[in-house]
Amino acid sequence: MQNLSEISGNIVDVLNNRIYTGTIHIVDGIIRSIEENTNSYNNFIMPGFVDAHIHIESSMLTPYEFARVALLHGTVATVSDPHEIANVLGLKGVYYMMENAKGAMLKFNFGAPSCVPATTFESAGATLSASEIDELMQRDDILYLSEMMNYPGVLYKDAMVMEKIAVAKKYNKPIDGHAPGLRDQQAANYIAAGISTDHECFTLDEALDKIKYGMKILIREGSAARNFDALYPLLKDHYNECMFCCDDKHPDELLLGHIDQHVKRSVALGFDVMQVLKVACVNAVKHYKLKVGLLQRNDSADFIVVNNLKDFSVQQTVINGNIVAENGNCFLPKRSHQIVNHFNTTKSTATDFAIKAKTDTINCIVAHDGQLITGNEQIKCKIENGFAVADVSKDVLKMVVVNRYQSTKPSIAFIKNFGLKYGAIASSVAHDSHNIIAIGSNDDDLCRAVNLLIENTGGLSAVNGNDELVIALPIAGLMSDKDCETIGQLYGTIDRKAKEWGSTLRAPYMTLSFMALLVIPQLKLSDKGLFDGWEFRFTELFV
Amino acid sequence: MQNLSEISGNIVDVLNNRIYTGTIHIVDGIIRSIEENTNSYNNFIMPGFVDAHIHIESSMLTPYEFARVALLHGTVATVSDPHEIANVLGLKGVYYMMENAKGAMLKFNFGAPSCVPATTFESAGATLSASEIDELMQRDDILYLSEMMNYPGVLYKDAMVMEKIAVAKKYNKPIDGHAPGLRDQQAANYIAAGISTDHECFTLDEALDKIKYGMKILIREGSAARNFDALYPLLKDHYNECMFCCDDKHPDELLLGHIDQHVKRSVALGFDVMQVLKVACVNAVKHYKLKVGLLQRNDSADFIVVNNLKDFSVQQTVINGNIVAENGNCFLPKRSHQIVNHFNTTKSTATDFAIKAKTDTINCIVAHDGQLITGNEQIKCKIENGFAVADVSKDVLKMVVVNRYQSTKPSIAFIKNFGLKYGAIASSVAHDSHNIIAIGSNDDDLCRAVNLLIENTGGLSAVNGNDELVIALPIAGLMSDKDCETIGQLYGTIDRKAKEWGSTLRAPYMTLSFMALLVIPQLKLSDKGLFDGWEFRFTELFV
Repeated sequence: MQNLSEISGNIVDVLNNRIYTGTIHIVDGIIRSIEENTNSYNNFIMPGFVDAHIHIESSMLTPYEFARVALLHGTVATVSDPHEIANVLGLKGVYYMMENAKGAMLKFNFGAPSCVPATTFESAGATLSASEIDELMQRDDILYLSEMMNYPGVLYKDAMVMEKIAVAKKYNKPIDGHAPGLRDQQAANYIAAGISTDHECFTLDEALDKIKYGMKILIREGSAARNFDALYPLLKDHYNECMFCCDDKHPDELLLGHIDQHVKRSVALGFDVMQVLKVACVNAVKHYKLKVGLLQRNDSADFIVVNNLKDFSVQQTVINGNIVAENGNCFLPKRSHQIVNHFNTTKSTATDFAIKAKTDTINCIVAHDGQLITGNEQIKCKIENGFAVADVSKDVLKMVVVNRYQSTKPSIAFIKNFGLKYGAIASSVAHDSHNIIAIGSNDDDLCRAVNLLIENTGGLSAVNGNDELVIALPIAGLMSDKDCETIGQLYGTIDRKAKEWGSTLRAPYMTLSFMALLVIPQLKLSDKGLFDGWEFRFTELFV
Repeated sequence: MQNLSEISGNIVDVLNNRIYTGTIHIVDGIIRSIEENTNSYNNFIMPGFVDAHIHIESSMLTPYEFARVALLHGTVATVSDPHEIANVLGLKGVYYMMENAKGAMLKFNFGAPSCVPATTFESAGATLSASEIDELMQRDDILYLSEMMNYPGVLYKDAMVMEKIAVAKKYNKPIDGHAPGLRDQQAANYIAAGISTDHECFTLDEALDKIKYGMKILIREGSAARNFDALYPLLKDHYNECMFCCDDKHPDELLLGHIDQHVKRSVALGFDVMQVLKVACVNAVKHYKLKVGLLQRNDSADFIVVNNLKDFSVQQTVINGNIVAENGNCFLPKRSHQIVNHFNTTKSTATDFAIKAKTDTINCIVAHDGQLITGNEQIKCKIENGFAVADVSKDVLKMVVVNRYQSTKPSIAFIKNFGLKYGAIASSVAHDSHNIIAIGSNDDDLCRAVNLLIENTGGLSAVNGNDELVIALPIAGLMSDKDCETIGQLYGTIDRKAKEWGSTLRAPYMTLSFMALLVIPQLKLSDKGLFDGWEFRFTELFV
């Protein structure tokens, strides 16, 4: 990595809403002076992009490998919630992320996950108590309490929830929200409790409502949830109250772009470029008090150089005065990654997945393409020798969740709309507890798909007789120790297999990973059983 | 525009599946020789991208203005079906597109629209008879019969359809298909009739079925329909039988990319780059016998220069030896555009849109976000003084279609799921006949939105009391005479208005434009009345 001592160009001063020509002088990674001049330049020097809410784990990459790609797209900082690894490894997981990020140059800004585990109706690998939150929050490098998903807990003043909120307030650090669909007085109460951001709005009205009560809105466009089209009108009058984020970004899509994509789309829609850059580069820095420079004297020398303010094609990314990426090449050296995990279950046999038919009618989960929400349909099940079995002709597949933290009996259900005609697919990325979740057309393939993950201590697998593929995710069963190109391509291969075997879903592994997410209704499956998200209680498979 | 006489670099010879270093010598726009050498270069010279099926009209730009943006993204050719303008202006429309494209450098390759009008249940502005198709097909610059949507007509050997097919065969030109969901023997029969491509597959199975019977499959990813995720597995074993296309591309999205986006995504997923480029650059050239060079000796000098084979960031686009675009700048001079139109209706009054309630129950159209298909829900309607009216509290809005080719009474229906709480929106882009379609919360705004389009002889409008906006589309009521940045930004502004007034749809004007498309079920509205697409006949508004 080369050290930069000076650079000239069109300087985009977003803070002061002006563009001027000049030369920036850098000493020890700090902008010591900026000389204005009257030269003419082709390049634009501007603050780097910030992703205001992301779970790095969803990229299946370590923070270091994530940085090696995100830096190419002009991202200089993220607000990273290590919620996924915390559900597997607790505090140890959070510290792993912080340790791994060292030397990655990109400023990750981790927070303290507020909701581990997400519910008591599933077996997570760890819990984070209020005192552990306190241990995190007293650190200078933990900047906020992240994603308070338990909004009923906030509204009804659950003791544990209030304790965690009190810890954040004690250290005067912001608290992030997560309250899809919350409106009116309930939204006002949630916000009055001290929650300052939300990244879950899916309609403009909802966002305007929350802004009215003082919230900052994160316009999210990632691999899993896409809200840009609904929310971009906020950029007109509410650019001071918005930030951009991805929340979840898969490796194949990270290769294509990051926050630069939000920016290009916004500018193409005709929004004022300086206002868009305020949303993309400045607001998160101010809200979270990130140590990220904004092209002012005495700021750390964090910025990007782009060809113009339309394409935002990144020529250089500079962090602390180091050129970390240039024209599609990242200068971070390759390195190996320490493996940490929490995987402690014995292999299954196919008979573990057999289920006696108590009646001939079942509550069947109905997946919806591109949505986290599911339906519940009462259907006649196919019965063979007294056992309820998958019925490929009706697209009714068997789904199982296997506790990966200890050996217990799997939970079993049925699901429609995955479309698989052959084989089975499985994943140890299964929000929020990240047990093993699998869907199959027959018990043998289903069992093999699960066991492949146990052998590899986590990952994604696809099995159809002798045709099998596994992407190992040995770090917490969530992340690979490989680089983004390798994982992006492997992800492409395994996704293709599921589609070749009949899946009609846009992203079968992504949909699979949300089928155990109990907090989003209606019918879901945890390792402990079939769960009705509207009633917020377990329910019976057989009617 | 600068003439190029020689260029050196890594030459990507997709036809022969090799990359080598060398210098290309160009005389009079033709590659006269290519000298191999052993130098080292940073740039890659490769064939340009081809969009194998697009309606240029959907960009709301003239072909010339479309080119000024598409060239930046490395597109050198399109296979362009002037179906939209033909529905408005017949042959005259087709010739307008060909005339306007002159000097645009991009090779548009227009075809003869096969299905004008689309049905007899609506008033289009023109018809194209078999003899008019013959007039087109005998021209050297009309290369194919485009998009045979009337697949029942093919299967049941409708005389008019067979006559058009016979014309194409007489001139030995390919026939494009359009047969969403057609399978097995029906697909085989459709293909056996001489239809050689399809761009409507939405599942992998369907595509494999059609390939089995000898069809070429176009993997479509545009603004309206997105099938890349479902179909990309074809790139593995079927790269010889596939092409890429957009079908419809809106101006705001055209600014962001074109076929280069298909290519980047495919390569990120791990597909062999030479096979991907075969799909993106070569297959359409061969299938349609396009006069587009492929970097061989004696080919016309059509190619692009990119930074690498991962980002495909376009440094230069060269057509017939001219550098037409470079680093985000297009060298085509600005110019004005001739206006042609077919708009002949008198203004409405609000009372034209009043409708007496015959009963208290109606067949209500149900829009689905992101889909062309609609539902039919029988609901109680709100009645005021004996008239059925919009009921914003239940999200039941009034929808009207006004014949734009002659003054007749409007047809009236009701629709759910647009979400508008105030005002009205209207469009003269309304597939396939492009009459005026409007949706509103009250008759006054509805009427004003319609009349704004009549005053402007076409466009998109939004009206909420005194707050009104119109994007004039004076060319056939479909296209602007302005440039892409202007239209992209205006489109952003009007889309934002609809969302600010309550619409929860991802793209309200896009959804609106398909609510009169009778060939896609279930309930639609033409200028002649409410239409049931399953029964393929008119139906009653009042139950």
